[in-house]
Amino acid sequence: MTTWDSLYANRASRMRASEIRELLKLLDRPDVISFAGGIPDQALFPAEAFKEAYEEILSGPDAGRALQYGVSEGSVRLRDWIVGHMRALGIACGPENILVTSGSQQGLDYIGKLFLSAGDTALVQWPTYLGALQAFNAYEPEYDRLDPGTNRAAADYASKAAAKGGRIKFAYLSPDFANPTGLSVDLAERKRLLSLAGDLDCAVIEDSPYEALRYDGDAVDPLLALDCAASGGIENTRTLYCGSFSKSLSPGLRLGWICAASPVISRLVLIKQASDLNTPVLNQEAMARVAERCFDSHTARTNAIYKERRDAMLAALAAHMPEGVRWTRPEGGMFIWVELPSGMDAADLLQKSLASAGVAFVPGGAFHPDGTGGNTLRLSFSCADYQKIEEGISRLGGLIAQTVMSTL
Amino acid sequence: MTTWDSLYANRASRMRASEIRELLKLLDRPDVISFAGGIPDQALFPAEAFKEAYEEILSGPDAGRALQYGVSEGSVRLRDWIVGHMRALGIACGPENILVTSGSQQGLDYIGKLFLSAGDTALVQWPTYLGALQAFNAYEPEYDRLDPGTNRAAADYASKAAAKGGRIKFAYLSPDFANPTGLSVDLAERKRLLSLAGDLDCAVIEDSPYEALRYDGDAVDPLLALDCAASGGIENTRTLYCGSFSKSLSPGLRLGWICAASPVISRLVLIKQASDLNTPVLNQEAMARVAERCFDSHTARTNAIYKERRDAMLAALAAHMPEGVRWTRPEGGMFIWVELPSGMDAADLLQKSLASAGVAFVPGGAFHPDGTGGNTLRLSFSCADYQKIEEGISRLGGLIAQTVMSTL
Repeated sequence: MTTWDSLYANRASRMRASEIRELLKLLDRPDVISFAGGIPDQALFPAEAFKEAYEEILSGPDAGRALQYGVSEGSVRLRDWIVGHMRALGIACGPENILVTSGSQQGLDYIGKLFLSAGDTALVQWPTYLGALQAFNAYEPEYDRLDPGTNRAAADYASKAAAKGGRIKFAYLSPDFANPTGLSVDLAERKRLLSLAGDLDCAVIEDSPYEALRYDGDAVDPLLALDCAASGGIENTRTLYCGSFSKSLSPGLRLGWICAASPVISRLVLIKQASDLNTPVLNQEAMARVAERCFDSHTARTNAIYKERRDAMLAALAAHMPEGVRWTRPEGGMFIWVELPSGMDAADLLQKSLASAGVAFVPGGAFHPDGTGGNTLRLSFSCADYQKIEEGISRLGGLIAQTVMSTL
Repeated sequence: MTTWDSLYANRASRMRASEIRELLKLLDRPDVISFAGGIPDQALFPAEAFKEAYEEILSGPDAGRALQYGVSEGSVRLRDWIVGHMRALGIACGPENILVTSGSQQGLDYIGKLFLSAGDTALVQWPTYLGALQAFNAYEPEYDRLDPGTNRAAADYASKAAAKGGRIKFAYLSPDFANPTGLSVDLAERKRLLSLAGDLDCAVIEDSPYEALRYDGDAVDPLLALDCAASGGIENTRTLYCGSFSKSLSPGLRLGWICAASPVISRLVLIKQASDLNTPVLNQEAMARVAERCFDSHTARTNAIYKERRDAMLAALAAHMPEGVRWTRPEGGMFIWVELPSGMDAADLLQKSLASAGVAFVPGGAFHPDGTGGNTLRLSFSCADYQKIEEGISRLGGLIAQTVMSTL
């Protein structure tokens, strides 16, 4: 037998199955009301628009080209649409500032590959999107907690990174309706973070897959837009913006993008070329057509539905949660973050809930790389209808109340 | 301005644009007869079959599922087809032995990521597929020349790797109609190579994107099939087979696969999950349908066309090349490899050829990581018709004859 373990690279020791993905497999039971999965509702995808787009491309004179290899940067037509989208967000840029990626997850992998040597430090929010850590882990970084809300000095961040044998390469955050908390970073914190990154001379990774899913409140400028305004233009910025079509039109085509200064995009294009040559041209051409034709109308329609579900979940939480339980009130996205009375363990609660209440959620400990957050949990409202939300939150509230009583 | 260069990882110094890709951009001129591009003829893709498949999926009850996230391993239906294909090649395996990748290029990237720490050695053929080196370079390996035709001892390979600070993790080769030479590795050499890998206790990477493009001669068992037979079954093997739909049905969907022992596939699934979650389900479902319906008939039809082109190019070479020029006679694939009289430089010849003959090819030096091979060049016959082949090779032969004369 081949002794595989001895053949693997050092980085393989940091590759683990996502706890959440493994959990989701267990939770996929028809008898369970699930608020666990963090995915968009597939009943809402514009399947008819995609069907027309594929048919048009594959019946047309450019079918052969759509089925051929393509350029690593991405298709011109799709990059043009993305440029317009970024401009509407206050980011003046051109196609040379865009790399099309196979979902924003691939963008995170490429960013890790470009910036992180073993022992370098990445600053990340807590709790954070686990998929980002999984992507970065392959490049063997250290992590330090990013908290723009405190007054921790740049020198303190830098010396901690130096003590680990590397330097701070970037600060990673998801500023809009983040997974898992649903919270956004306000304007003052965004500015403080850019200032901190300037002091550290490091990059900023703005991961914004939920940006288009705003249900109320006022939009806050993306960090890249603030960076452009402060530095005089995108070529002077230090922010890499990761966008995605996965939460707005469809995750199935695996299409996202990175928008940044052109020298960084050129480096990322080399990484793309070496790692999978190009994202499928056919999918890019189809997405460009669907985005041109119905991005605004489609997201308006689905946002109205997601808003109803969010409101239903907030109302159910208010009606059914016992005292001592707190939760976020997100202005968009897919998630509500719940804090149980301190001392209560969300992983234990999930076991009880599956056994007696038939309600699933994701315990929040998984989103804290430092092992804290045991009394937190994530609820997703994106895939449940009003009745299930009311019934599921009612049962969960009853179970939490019981658990609180039994520990008194 | 951000000082980007100081922020990049060490590995970034090894990321360069593919010389060949850059060259191909220059050669894409309508007045040039090009034998440079190493891609399949897009006029031959089964566009109608793909159109029907996409329409069927996107009109059907599973449209939402096809547009949703999917499992990292790959779609069941496509993996089932691949299992059947591998079994026909003499490799008894199940779906647990298959990872669907976004083209076989992604397979090579993941293999580098799984096995190579900085300073480890990869054994590679010379000349070799450059895209493999580009994929591996991100993981900062050393290279040593693999030559199963010599009697170099395993201990010699191993001590050279140890001197570089690592160990030999795998031997990489493309055994069927390789890019760039068009040559195949015979049965005796395959067996010697497996024996060498056993002595080194390293993996074997069998990169076989051209496997289905055989025009004559007898098929030789894949190394993975020989490994299965010798070791008692796929779970005991050390060979990772990289397959691709890019050269047979279409490169545009970016679909390939890795077939190997299930513990290795499980590790690669974790890498897939962290780097892009999954290959598009929609594309996998479409490819599964097209492969089920017409893989054999389509490759039979296109192989007949490619065979004519190969034969035309071999005939033209025989008719027009001066004495002292040698070339390979590949039994399949897309390439013929030409050796010019020693001392003649193929890069110089390309400049002259573009200026005076209007014929493009790829100088062979680019395929030799050690800087040798200056008198070699690669001709691709996949995209040219009979008339262009006759005319182009005639002009090129005349130019080479002139060059030979002028140096006498």
